[in-house]
Amino acid sequence: MKTENQVQNPPPLATIARLGEHAGEEVCLRGWVYNLRESGKLLFPQFRDGAGIVQGVLFQKTAPPELFARVKSLTQETSVEVTGKVRADARAPGGYELEITGLEIVQLVPPESPYPITPKEHGVDFLMDHRHLWLRSQRQTAILRVRHEVIRAVREFLDHDGFILADAPILTPAACEGTSTLFEVDYFDDKAYLTQSGQLYAEAAAMALGKTYCFGPTFRAEKSKTRRHLTEFWMVEPEMAFAQLDDVMALAERLVAGVVARVLQSCPRELAVLERNLAPLEAVQLPFPRISYDEAVERLRAAGSPIEWGGDLGGTDETLLAREFDRPVMVHRYPAQVKAFYMQPDPVRPEVAMCVDMLAPEGYGEIIGGSQRIHDLDLLRRRIESHHLPEAAFQWYLDLRRFGSVPHGGFGMGIERVVAWLCGIEHIRETIPFPRTIYRIFP
Amino acid sequence: MKTENQVQNPPPLATIARLGEHAGEEVCLRGWVYNLRESGKLLFPQFRDGAGIVQGVLFQKTAPPELFARVKSLTQETSVEVTGKVRADARAPGGYELEITGLEIVQLVPPESPYPITPKEHGVDFLMDHRHLWLRSQRQTAILRVRHEVIRAVREFLDHDGFILADAPILTPAACEGTSTLFEVDYFDDKAYLTQSGQLYAEAAAMALGKTYCFGPTFRAEKSKTRRHLTEFWMVEPEMAFAQLDDVMALAERLVAGVVARVLQSCPRELAVLERNLAPLEAVQLPFPRISYDEAVERLRAAGSPIEWGGDLGGTDETLLAREFDRPVMVHRYPAQVKAFYMQPDPVRPEVAMCVDMLAPEGYGEIIGGSQRIHDLDLLRRRIESHHLPEAAFQWYLDLRRFGSVPHGGFGMGIERVVAWLCGIEHIRETIPFPRTIYRIFP
Repeated sequence: MKTENQVQNPPPLATIARLGEHAGEEVCLRGWVYNLRESGKLLFPQFRDGAGIVQGVLFQKTAPPELFARVKSLTQETSVEVTGKVRADARAPGGYELEITGLEIVQLVPPESPYPITPKEHGVDFLMDHRHLWLRSQRQTAILRVRHEVIRAVREFLDHDGFILADAPILTPAACEGTSTLFEVDYFDDKAYLTQSGQLYAEAAAMALGKTYCFGPTFRAEKSKTRRHLTEFWMVEPEMAFAQLDDVMALAERLVAGVVARVLQSCPRELAVLERNLAPLEAVQLPFPRISYDEAVERLRAAGSPIEWGGDLGGTDETLLAREFDRPVMVHRYPAQVKAFYMQPDPVRPEVAMCVDMLAPEGYGEIIGGSQRIHDLDLLRRRIESHHLPEAAFQWYLDLRRFGSVPHGGFGMGIERVVAWLCGIEHIRETIPFPRTIYRIFP
Repeated sequence: MKTENQVQNPPPLATIARLGEHAGEEVCLRGWVYNLRESGKLLFPQFRDGAGIVQGVLFQKTAPPELFARVKSLTQETSVEVTGKVRADARAPGGYELEITGLEIVQLVPPESPYPITPKEHGVDFLMDHRHLWLRSQRQTAILRVRHEVIRAVREFLDHDGFILADAPILTPAACEGTSTLFEVDYFDDKAYLTQSGQLYAEAAAMALGKTYCFGPTFRAEKSKTRRHLTEFWMVEPEMAFAQLDDVMALAERLVAGVVARVLQSCPRELAVLERNLAPLEAVQLPFPRISYDEAVERLRAAGSPIEWGGDLGGTDETLLAREFDRPVMVHRYPAQVKAFYMQPDPVRPEVAMCVDMLAPEGYGEIIGGSQRIHDLDLLRRRIESHHLPEAAFQWYLDLRRFGSVPHGGFGMGIERVVAWLCGIEHIRETIPFPRTIYRIFP
């Protein structure tokens, strides 16, 4: 941007998030016009640069007329390079204001075809159709930053704990838990399916690496239209060799507590933008309550649910149960009949599975599902048979029980549900940059 | 594993990687038998636990006969809990040996149906059919650990540099660069395609976040059978607003130099297992050479290539050219006609694109492809038209040029190619836990 004839050095390039390092100095910012407010002979344009928002000030009586006119002409989302002096101002949102000394327009959004998302209320379909622009709003940017921090915290936690990443394939030949909710792909002259879970592969990797995780997109072709469902969502799945249900629960609660603490520490501005009540998040301390499915059913019946022993918990039951605790609750040992074929039966009560679901507080439902896996070859074979699964497709999985089988277990944590909970937002579709649902695959 | 009647405390649980912390002490290890060597009245079983390999020693004359017989019966990949005294031994690979004092078998691999992968040579198809077991080999585990470290280094580099993760969707409605190499998915009553690149979405996110990246699996239904191609591979794609080609190149070389340094520092044991010559990696220092496509063509012709100005570089050309440098070389400003529709033309020579490919040394080919993107609405429209792409499908992408367009750019880096290069391995199929190629979607 320099020219050879430039006499003065241009002011240093700064970002809004780090304006404080330049208090009293003149800086250059590159960004977009978020808003423009006029008050008599004062202009207050707000600029965003992806890392923050700052308010600029321009006085008509001291500004060059040409500059004043240019700033006055700014439309929402016009891209600019603005220079100005950084002034501490306790009333400003970030603590600083910019006394504008110059402004160049990079691209003016024409007043006759303005930015479609205005401060007025828009319908959800309209916003989702404009998701590529809606992402720029303060609220959506805050959610993306919380998501970034959640994913970073999960990975750093597991890496630090000695887990080695081994990503599972997305294109798979067979179903993990039946084929009814699988997306089918044309794979050259064959058929493939999009993965619903990397778990079976993570089990193989755990026998190679001891502690491992996979972390990628997973897919469910469910025709669910609830606010908790996406067809494409990200899941982290740690898996440990030589581990039992208690180890799985201990890891799950440490991970969730660690992620919550990290987001509280790193994202105070984002949580403020989202108007998140912090008290319920600050209560998320170890240890988490652990109750058996039996106790959960008793509590639910006492609270008025019609649930009978033997059935899975519905969304309403999950909300009802979670309400009784001030932190995530781990419900373990569900009836084996409602759970997946690979779950280890309880040694003293084989009708229940050595599994755990973690339910988030405040009605956010299941965020973790995990279990100890069957490590006995013959038992696993019988389960594959009784679940009417094709044994041939599972020969490689059975190999893990033929060659050095050990007790092992792990869980899957759905990233979008955790982000929805931490952000305190109602619908999961805002927790992923470009959501995919039964009705939406655009943009 | 404790019983109530246990009199002695069991020895502490240790991992092989951290045996040194227990020198002189008795410890318990959980793992698998990697190998068993006999020498007269001595047994030398090797154990692996996912984090390392250690050799145990047992003398017939001092061992309880029952223990000696049990250790002698061990088969490859049998899972065990072994106790022993840690003894420093300079000749041992990890610097320590284990004087075995006890051993419990968790699951004995039956001698009559032994572990299928033996120390003898196996064909590649056999190994790939047994990928779920092959992962346990020292070589494959080393590659997975290097891969883990590469991914971790990339994420930490970008996070530290202020990039915010915004993952692009996998299921997309339209093609980024034509539909011939796309996998088609049945999406309820519609069709969807697996993403080839998250770039267009990353551009939208860059306008919201300033600096962003996506990092996920990408798919190409290419019928390539070369050692450099997979149908499913992972790619990281940083994208920056207010950036030009020089900024893209500066980021690319800093990222690659940072990743190489990190792997050299963190993975010395893994690189030793892989017998990687470290000298070419240690030479990867900033700055990387930058040559124009014009110069590349001249150099190639001088080196005997039949290449003519105007064509893309083939694999052989890439290898030939990279051989002239001791570090990755960045080739910029290719003819626009061989590059994607969205690339910014050079302002003084519009027949070349403001793009860059980074070629790895030692014949590993292109590891990065990037460019400055067209930010002018009318020019981008004309390019969409001249490339015979459906403008309707790109309206949302054009919106990025209607509302606050700025010069911007980024690149994609293929993780598997970087891992292959750093590990010094010939075929890319070993760089991902469960490779997918035109002929393979199993296990």
